[in-house]
Amino acid sequence: MSLETPYTPAIVVDQNILDANIYSMAAFAEENNLVLRPHAKTHKIGHIAHKQLAAGSPGLSVATVGEAEYFFNQGISDLFISYPLWVDPHSGKVLTRLATEGTLAIGTDSVTAVHRLADVTAQHPDIIIMIEINSGHNRSGVSAHQVVPIAEAVRKRHMTLGGVFTFPGHSYGPGEQNVAAEAEAKTLKSAEDYLREAGFEVSVLSGGSSPSAKATVAGGATEIRPGVYVFGDAQQYELGRVGMEEISLTIVTTVVSRDEGSEDTPARIIVDAGSKVLAADRAHWATGHGRVPGHPEARITGLSEHHGTIFWDSADLPEIGSRLHIIPNHVCVAVNLVDEIFVSDGQKVIDRWQVGARGMNS
Amino acid sequence: MSLETPYTPAIVVDQNILDANIYSMAAFAEENNLVLRPHAKTHKIGHIAHKQLAAGSPGLSVATVGEAEYFFNQGISDLFISYPLWVDPHSGKVLTRLATEGTLAIGTDSVTAVHRLADVTAQHPDIIIMIEINSGHNRSGVSAHQVVPIAEAVRKRHMTLGGVFTFPGHSYGPGEQNVAAEAEAKTLKSAEDYLREAGFEVSVLSGGSSPSAKATVAGGATEIRPGVYVFGDAQQYELGRVGMEEISLTIVTTVVSRDEGSEDTPARIIVDAGSKVLAADRAHWATGHGRVPGHPEARITGLSEHHGTIFWDSADLPEIGSRLHIIPNHVCVAVNLVDEIFVSDGQKVIDRWQVGARGMNS
Repeated sequence: MSLETPYTPAIVVDQNILDANIYSMAAFAEENNLVLRPHAKTHKIGHIAHKQLAAGSPGLSVATVGEAEYFFNQGISDLFISYPLWVDPHSGKVLTRLATEGTLAIGTDSVTAVHRLADVTAQHPDIIIMIEINSGHNRSGVSAHQVVPIAEAVRKRHMTLGGVFTFPGHSYGPGEQNVAAEAEAKTLKSAEDYLREAGFEVSVLSGGSSPSAKATVAGGATEIRPGVYVFGDAQQYELGRVGMEEISLTIVTTVVSRDEGSEDTPARIIVDAGSKVLAADRAHWATGHGRVPGHPEARITGLSEHHGTIFWDSADLPEIGSRLHIIPNHVCVAVNLVDEIFVSDGQKVIDRWQVGARGMNS
Repeated sequence: MSLETPYTPAIVVDQNILDANIYSMAAFAEENNLVLRPHAKTHKIGHIAHKQLAAGSPGLSVATVGEAEYFFNQGISDLFISYPLWVDPHSGKVLTRLATEGTLAIGTDSVTAVHRLADVTAQHPDIIIMIEINSGHNRSGVSAHQVVPIAEAVRKRHMTLGGVFTFPGHSYGPGEQNVAAEAEAKTLKSAEDYLREAGFEVSVLSGGSSPSAKATVAGGATEIRPGVYVFGDAQQYELGRVGMEEISLTIVTTVVSRDEGSEDTPARIIVDAGSKVLAADRAHWATGHGRVPGHPEARITGLSEHHGTIFWDSADLPEIGSRLHIIPNHVCVAVNLVDEIFVSDGQKVIDRWQVGARGMNS
């Protein structure tokens, strides 16, 4: 992959690997009769979203109203905001437009939020409500047995019940993929049972994190929402979900300082990629703040805002001014730190794409 | 402080506390005969920089060429890029302009980088070179006894030697402020001695992180470069360097989900401030991913991109849709995640400022 970005630190994406990742997940979904609704919070780029739709997805998952509006304006009209929104009046107007002109689903996990949503959208009948359930990640979402009152509120306000969704985020632990995928299937089916018994139609059971998506249990989810799979990252690599050759995105960085080490201190280099481009996300099981492709022994032991500290084999210490690739731990937060990414054909930079939904947190 | 931002998550700054912090540090510097050159990577906002100059600072410290150019265009012409730059040709042109039209100092910690800088700026004689030394943080910077060859390279290329600088970043540990401040003074003086013995003039000894700035040892640094002091953050609070009432910046967030807890799980709320606005920085000694003012027992135990999980006293659990303030762990990286901050007079929002240098990593 090219190191020749016009400046560093900069994000570069290998278009061939990106395309292969998009088609691989699409093929998996098709073979398993699953709808693939990719989570676009990972890339925030219209161009990549259109590739995902060209590969067979009907639409996208997004995290915020701002992301939904951005992708709608990019020509993608089938959107699911898979988040338990509390909607302010301005956002209510945006959602009303998106539901009127396209297909819009919104997450919720409370009766209170259903009423709020109805209030600020004048009970728009086309807004599809998806109830969030907790399948063990213990973040938002109700237990499966608590879904019925929320569905009743949706009916009372004359909105549309789409189904249930969950994020099996406990898949982000070594060896937890199958455990999380099984919990996802069991919880989705249980919620569906409660709703059917209470007389509600359920058309969508939505799940699927990037680590667990390809472990999705048959007969569970009807839809999966992986995001990271387009790029891959050091977390997915260290969890054993992707190989190095499947990672399409790296950060190009320059060595700005080096120390050959001594008896007391290991040899190290300092690069210009710090927490303002790599982000500080680091799971307790991670080996460091990212990985250096081609140098499996290198360890990114420290991050300041503009400094990455990498312990390195002293026999092979890079020179000041040389460039390296780094794979960030968590790619979604890294992409959100830049205004543009560079596109490579594997050899050279051929394009640049704006990160159009960067910073759209609300 | 006001919770009435137009949307959440959003950053709000109390202008009265901000002004008090700026004047407090300026008064400390004046009383101790120190030049205060605030690090503007914390706020990245021209308006705040002008307040710092009005309080007596001659100019700013910045981290990147992009930040330097932004603040220069905001009318601030005395700038020190306190970073061991490896300069590309485009940046060389920017630096040449800033040195010609204003006063520009640049950090380095190698002979190689001095020659590179001379090459890309046509050996601009007005560029002031500051040599970075390592006072125990073990990031970039040479040992004090290694400064002379770098000074000789500066002389050989007919540039201007300003002095030496260090970042006593090991002050970011409980009880380490005085240890770091003493190491800073000792290392700066040692580097100065080596340079004077070799026949070099040294006019500036620059140090001073936010935790250690007010512990600066007399007879050591002539200049300090704290950044965080304008806002404060949860790290500074938990290190005992600031009180809650001295923190001028918070993130306004909405409760989107709540769980009253059970025998097995503590009561929790989920807020819409996640790692894409709080950032994931968390020192090993931190109590969580930030603090909730007025609720010392609340613990931010988890962060996803758009979810903050807060364990909370079940007797007092906030309602869905209510708003809270959160103080981020590390304010510099939080501000870099938004395009604008809201300004409060303590009661209501009165203004908004663009984060003009957001994302300027190079």
